[in-house]
Amino acid sequence: VTGVPEAEARLQREIDRCPYHELLRPEAVQADGEVVVVRLPFRRELGLARDRDHFHGGVVAGLVDLAAHAVVAVATGTVAPTVDLRVDFLRPAPAPELVARATLIRQGRSFSRADVEVLDHAGRLVTQGRGVFSTGRGEPG
Amino acid sequence: VTGVPEAEARLQREIDRCPYHELLRPEAVQADGEVVVVRLPFRRELGLARDRDHFHGGVVAGLVDLAAHAVVAVATGTVAPTVDLRVDFLRPAPAPELVARATLIRQGRSFSRADVEVLDHAGRLVTQGRGVFSTGRGEPG
Amino acid sequence: VTGVPEAEARLQREIDRCPYHELLRPEAVQADGEVVVVRLPFRRELGLARDRDHFHGGVVAGLVDLAAHAVVAVATGTVAPTVDLRVDFLRPAPAPELVARATLIRQGRSFSRADVEVLDHAGRLVTQGRGVFSTGRGEPG
Amino acid sequence: VTGVPEAEARLQREIDRCPYHELLRPEAVQADGEVVVVRLPFRRELGLARDRDHFHGGVVAGLVDLAAHAVVAVATGTVAPTVDLRVDFLRPAPAPELVARATLIRQGRSFSRADVEVLDHAGRLVTQGRGVFSTGRGEPG
Repeated sequence: VTGVPEAEARLQREIDRCPYHELLRPEAVQADGEVVVVRLPFRRELGLARDRDHFHGGVVAGLVDLAAHAVVAVATGTVAPTVDLRVDFLRPAPAPELVARATLIRQGRSFSRADVEVLDHAGRLVTQGRGVFSTGRGEPG
Repeated sequence: VTGVPEAEARLQREIDRCPYHELLRPEAVQADGEVVVVRLPFRRELGLARDRDHFHGGVVAGLVDLAAHAVVAVATGTVAPTVDLRVDFLRPAPAPELVARATLIRQGRSFSRADVEVLDHAGRLVTQGRGVFSTGRGEPG
Repeated sequence: VTGVPEAEARLQREIDRCPYHELLRPEAVQADGEVVVVRLPFRRELGLARDRDHFHGGVVAGLVDLAAHAVVAVATGTVAPTVDLRVDFLRPAPAPELVARATLIRQGRSFSRADVEVLDHAGRLVTQGRGVFSTGRGEPG
Repeated sequence: VTGVPEAEARLQREIDRCPYHELLRPEAVQADGEVVVVRLPFRRELGLARDRDHFHGGVVAGLVDLAAHAVVAVATGTVAPTVDLRVDFLRPAPAPELVARATLIRQGRSFSRADVEVLDHAGRLVTQGRGVFSTGRGEPG
């Protein structure tokens, strides 16, 4: 069983682990054994267009990937390669921030599943994500 | 009908349009009416881990999104919001570069579909992507 | 606004509409404007193998499709073609029955989205589904 | 290495194995180590509506599942549970028959991947499918 302080330390390690996260700059909000919450503040460089303060879809997909990964890492204690990832874009993703909430759906012997909801600052669901992660022997896919 | 020079100009405009692409730095390789090819050189900041020169999965997902978007933009002449995106990670995505080849599968009245193959420098298939784009009245999803 | 009796009548009409449903034999359980519940009793002909009483994956996928379709039909009053469907198989799907609960996630001008959870008789989540449906001008895909 | 006669025998066994296939009645067309082709003749009971001779989407999804399964079974010699399945519906699926062509994309230690194209009698692409199958230790999902 993972206590909350240990889970939050693991989430922070997961965020600190990847050089790409220094470009995105996600912030750990909360973690327990089955749920992870990550915030992503808007910056102009994460934008879709010069004249609108909305996040680029590739940034949102990256946030989904990282949050799903993180909840699997927190739950299993290992870095599990992504097998596949699905991202449903429901609405534009506006500044000033997005909040991604990832939930572990099932942890199996060979793979784990996670669902992600991405909300805007007003709490509206802007994106849904779902992923499968290889928690077996570290095979990439 | 779109000639190749016009298609390549559209691809370049699509790449230049988004602030986020200045972080990723994709390069236009080729475009005609139904296929778009984009190259993404590796940089440390796009990496998954400090000790291995592999692209982060979120970067690969972003590349799939941008290449699929671009082929729809080239084919239809409009910027079409992503409805959903699926990304299958087959192998780790190594330096020094990835090449994404997006193909328009079907252009309908309300939405268009695109498939993407991402290859490494040795020509191995590392990731497959598939997306649906709203080519109707510009609804986000 | 759709009252519950009207919603349940629509669900029954949706089930009665398709010849294929006479093979599957799904049963309407419950419907309101945003949620539809359908039960599928096991029969040998829906099985995966001769020596085990489990539903075939194609049957489970068909149940996901029908439940998602139904919630969109109940919510919008129209028959909306499926754009795409994703099915995640978490566990084997055992006899004596499955219960599919479909939720409308978002109803847009061009598209609607639905999520489906399939539970076994003990209430365990065996399958998750997610679909996009064309609620625009009836384009098939 | 699998010879074609052995592959075709395996495909036939895979079709004969499931009680549900007696409802669908798919027919083996061709198999080698990496590609499987299956035909599905239309019958009224597989229909979407009483007044049009088109296949139900759940039937098409079932055909995608079975063809993808079959190519993995032929390639690996084992029955591999479906992890997840994605189905993109491009056009209505008309009588008198559908032909599904499944291709093994990658056979890994833990997972295998397959792509499926479903064509109508005129050779038009009506549906695309993509699936992940657990070729590890037989875990259901």
